[in-house]
Amino acid sequence: MDKFMEEALKEGRKAIEKNEGGPFGAVIVKDGKIIAKGHNRVLSTNDPTCHGEIDAIRKACKKLNTYDLKGCILYTTGEPCPMCACACLWANIEKVYYGCSISDTEDIGFRDNGFYKFFEQDKRKNYFIQTEKVKCLTLYNDYKNKKDKKEY
Amino acid sequence: MDKFMEEALKEGRKAIEKNEGGPFGAVIVKDGKIIAKGHNRVLSTNDPTCHGEIDAIRKACKKLNTYDLKGCILYTTGEPCPMCACACLWANIEKVYYGCSISDTEDIGFRDNGFYKFFEQDKRKNYFIQTEKVKCLTLYNDYKNKKDKKEY
Repeated sequence: MDKFMEEALKEGRKAIEKNEGGPFGAVIVKDGKIIAKGHNRVLSTNDPTCHGEIDAIRKACKKLNTYDLKGCILYTTGEPCPMCACACLWANIEKVYYGCSISDTEDIGFRDNGFYKFFEQDKRKNYFIQTEKVKCLTLYNDYKNKKDKKEY
Repeated sequence: MDKFMEEALKEGRKAIEKNEGGPFGAVIVKDGKIIAKGHNRVLSTNDPTCHGEIDAIRKACKKLNTYDLKGCILYTTGEPCPMCACACLWANIEKVYYGCSISDTEDIGFRDNGFYKFFEQDKRKNYFIQTEKVKCLTLYNDYKNKKDKKEY
């Protein structure tokens, strides 16, 4: 079995053994070595964003002292939800290997599949509502015109 | 002007004044009162997931000592990226008000729009690759059959 997925599985097992969250573990690999491990800790941290992938991304960034994980590969026991999928994109993770699919995750009681449908079916407009655009654009323009900013 | 968006704007301004990140601020409101404020701190924390919305969600959860923000409303200077949009869903935020749109955010140099297209155009399959499904399903089944788990 793939040695990196084996480590991701160990992480996922930690999450359920300690009732920290769902069976989701992840590891991040750079140059053939694991640089960070994480698992779902939504329940133990009361942080709904502390999924295995985001936990591992935060730890890898801390270790490498950067927000840019270019050249890193992520292994995770379950296909990332849209939040974690996009977190991988923001972090510039190169590729993601996952074990169980979104429908497997639905079978054990999680909402990931519904969230993907929410995006695909463009249901966003009832939930996200635009307001005060002009005032907010002033802030955006101040950022655009700022000369000493670091682009990222 | 909406008083809650005004506070979100102040947060966004903090982010750019201190070069902590992009012009994105957010506040979370419950029962007519602000319970948490956050802003983009990707650069200052080296955490690519520390967007304004996620920063505010984590702070609100810490304050209320729960991962469930049912009954809360989020105000944000920019339409949430897929990561933050899904974070709002996981946190059970009731409704989200935003100022600038995803295309406005693209105009000031951010990748949010491309990430939405990535999901809409189903480009996920080249980036997220399935492997070791059988081993991972064993972990999922152990979770499913676990009797003392807390469902969330």
